[in-house]
Amino acid sequence: MLKSNRSRLQELIERFSQFGATANGGVTRLSLSDEDVLARDYFCEVCKELGMTIQVDDMANIYATLPGKKECPPIVIGSHLDSVEKGGRFDGVLGILTAIEAIRTLQENEIELEIPLMLVNFTNEEGARFDPAMMSSGVLASKFTKEKMLQSTDKNGITFQEALQASGYEGQQANRLMEALAYIELHIEQGPVLEATQRDIGVVEGVLGMVCYEITVTGESNHAGTTPMKMRKDPMIVASRIISSLHEQLGEIDDELVFTFGRMNVAPNIHTVIPNKVVFTIDSRHQNPTIMREVEKLLTGLPSEENGCHIRPVKLWGRDTVVFDAAICDEVEKSCQNLGYTSNRMYSGAGHDAQFIAGFIPSAMIFVPSINGKSHCEEEETTYEDCAKGSDVLVASVLSLQKKLSLAENVH
Amino acid sequence: MLKSNRSRLQELIERFSQFGATANGGVTRLSLSDEDVLARDYFCEVCKELGMTIQVDDMANIYATLPGKKECPPIVIGSHLDSVEKGGRFDGVLGILTAIEAIRTLQENEIELEIPLMLVNFTNEEGARFDPAMMSSGVLASKFTKEKMLQSTDKNGITFQEALQASGYEGQQANRLMEALAYIELHIEQGPVLEATQRDIGVVEGVLGMVCYEITVTGESNHAGTTPMKMRKDPMIVASRIISSLHEQLGEIDDELVFTFGRMNVAPNIHTVIPNKVVFTIDSRHQNPTIMREVEKLLTGLPSEENGCHIRPVKLWGRDTVVFDAAICDEVEKSCQNLGYTSNRMYSGAGHDAQFIAGFIPSAMIFVPSINGKSHCEEEETTYEDCAKGSDVLVASVLSLQKKLSLAENVH
Repeated sequence: MLKSNRSRLQELIERFSQFGATANGGVTRLSLSDEDVLARDYFCEVCKELGMTIQVDDMANIYATLPGKKECPPIVIGSHLDSVEKGGRFDGVLGILTAIEAIRTLQENEIELEIPLMLVNFTNEEGARFDPAMMSSGVLASKFTKEKMLQSTDKNGITFQEALQASGYEGQQANRLMEALAYIELHIEQGPVLEATQRDIGVVEGVLGMVCYEITVTGESNHAGTTPMKMRKDPMIVASRIISSLHEQLGEIDDELVFTFGRMNVAPNIHTVIPNKVVFTIDSRHQNPTIMREVEKLLTGLPSEENGCHIRPVKLWGRDTVVFDAAICDEVEKSCQNLGYTSNRMYSGAGHDAQFIAGFIPSAMIFVPSINGKSHCEEEETTYEDCAKGSDVLVASVLSLQKKLSLAENVH
Repeated sequence: MLKSNRSRLQELIERFSQFGATANGGVTRLSLSDEDVLARDYFCEVCKELGMTIQVDDMANIYATLPGKKECPPIVIGSHLDSVEKGGRFDGVLGILTAIEAIRTLQENEIELEIPLMLVNFTNEEGARFDPAMMSSGVLASKFTKEKMLQSTDKNGITFQEALQASGYEGQQANRLMEALAYIELHIEQGPVLEATQRDIGVVEGVLGMVCYEITVTGESNHAGTTPMKMRKDPMIVASRIISSLHEQLGEIDDELVFTFGRMNVAPNIHTVIPNKVVFTIDSRHQNPTIMREVEKLLTGLPSEENGCHIRPVKLWGRDTVVFDAAICDEVEKSCQNLGYTSNRMYSGAGHDAQFIAGFIPSAMIFVPSINGKSHCEEEETTYEDCAKGSDVLVASVLSLQKKLSLAENVH
């Protein structure tokens, strides 16, 4: 089995960590920012050195391709270079850097490719500068319209269109990724499961379906000292009751169901005033659509009134579970076994470009462990050895897909 | 029984409502603001027309005095002219305007005073511009030091000292109210009890003791999608459990206990992130110190850890119950009876200057009903008839105290 070069990969990770480095060891590399453009420039430089052909599409997605012996759609690997504000050194970029290391490993072992191998950097996966997240893979998958995305505006009033033009990375629509034989995205887990179960690799079978509801409880403000308890319409009491009760009821549905009351705003939020409004969110995720329907039934079935307060749940959004390509997952799992690496089959709780790409290209993901499950913060960490193991699995998976797919009928 | 002049009082209330009038029928008359100074100027003008002598102390408290036949400390009536931002037309100012109407009623009925009658306007009762509330009565009562108060700064960086000097109302320390035979403050109830029990007047026996605690629940932020429920340290779940449980336990202690979870802040407050910190307040009030001790026992007895989260209650402040002068309360109650007005004996849940003045002058308060219990908002409302009934009770109480106290030994 081919092994990637540990120190070379580490150097590459450390090199890219400098683009937007923060004081506490993280990175701020917002999409199409100066830092992102520097990272893109260096990415292109490295790819050209590896003999790859660079193309850029109209969403600033970058494609670097190594030709194969056959003229057919490529196998694609990659992820995204952008980060959130004060994010970590691994989220996204690791999928690109392990892909570069995979190509270097193939080349130093003089492996000849049957099928073209494409490396991709998707623009604005994080949605941290321009809403929504996974913007460009979403445009490729026709989930979002380009026209609407161009108007998305950052906090300084700069539109995505302006940022696109200023970046020098506005390419041709004709270059968009339309067809490929497979897409594999390596990513950090961003959760604690691999570490807790002591597994090297996550074989990601799909992305959890989710719903996000905003629940508004409206009562009546009054003076905290002068209003007898029986004459109150206190939405804080009702909201706490709902959260405690949902926590209990949802907890009984399924062990793998996750749900989070992440945001709560209280008005007027003064210690001596009974609140008149409490607004909170619940985000819930599970791979099984039947269970997600049960969750939604509980949320939409909340009483509309309680203790004089009105309760109104509004669905902010939802996504159906995305199931990745079973055959690619099998190849990834076999690669782990052949390399002697332990693995878990698992679903991703977080969203990734692969969930949109899976709509038109057979896709799967490879997860590597996140220390303490931390992500989207400067403490985000994965050991270099785990990164290298991920790269090994990526190389092995690409090779076995090369073999398998070049025998397939549709590849001439 | 003397009756105050309904239309004259209404005109006075409407006149003062113009000082800082807001678009929606309320007032913004922050302490020592231009609007407050205009109200003060007009207050002094009216008092001078009534033949009263004006004195101002070093905290800008204004005292207007009518002499009595005896040379002795006065009976004092009054309240405050300042309001909160977008407050109502009655809070504070009504205690001063009913006092003016009381004096007009006495004069038109040619009542000769045995004991001097003083009208007071306390500076910065609300604490809305300069923290703390009841600042100047607090200085008189040695609850606060003047030196510290002078440094209190509004949101524009102006100190109380600067505002004092700019107002033209910085007087002499020698003028401070030090001695008086009685203090009666008329105020709106700011609660719903008089209206709900259909009473004209509240005979206020004291101010509820209170405690305010801030409870900090600290957990650990993680991704809402990738962190299994069993691996979470979610302070929102713990905070909701605490609020629901305290609501139940405190509710069982005593029907008259009030408690409010008025402020809650969640960090980082993002729908897709498990919070790492939830901070909320609980304000609780009751007249019985034993019950307040029970409340504090529950709060300080919270577990320090639950579901991996740390729980830390910190007492922000508290006040002991203030008991007003029983003899004055009796006089007020008798006055109601003589006038044929219904009344409730009650405690004030809100703080008032009278609670500090009660420390060195026998004091009591008169409440008039608040429609819907609303206060500190533009919808604050009391019918003019209820205002006039309050003024009637104030006149009658002053007269009976005049009679009673002029017979007492200490009045020469």
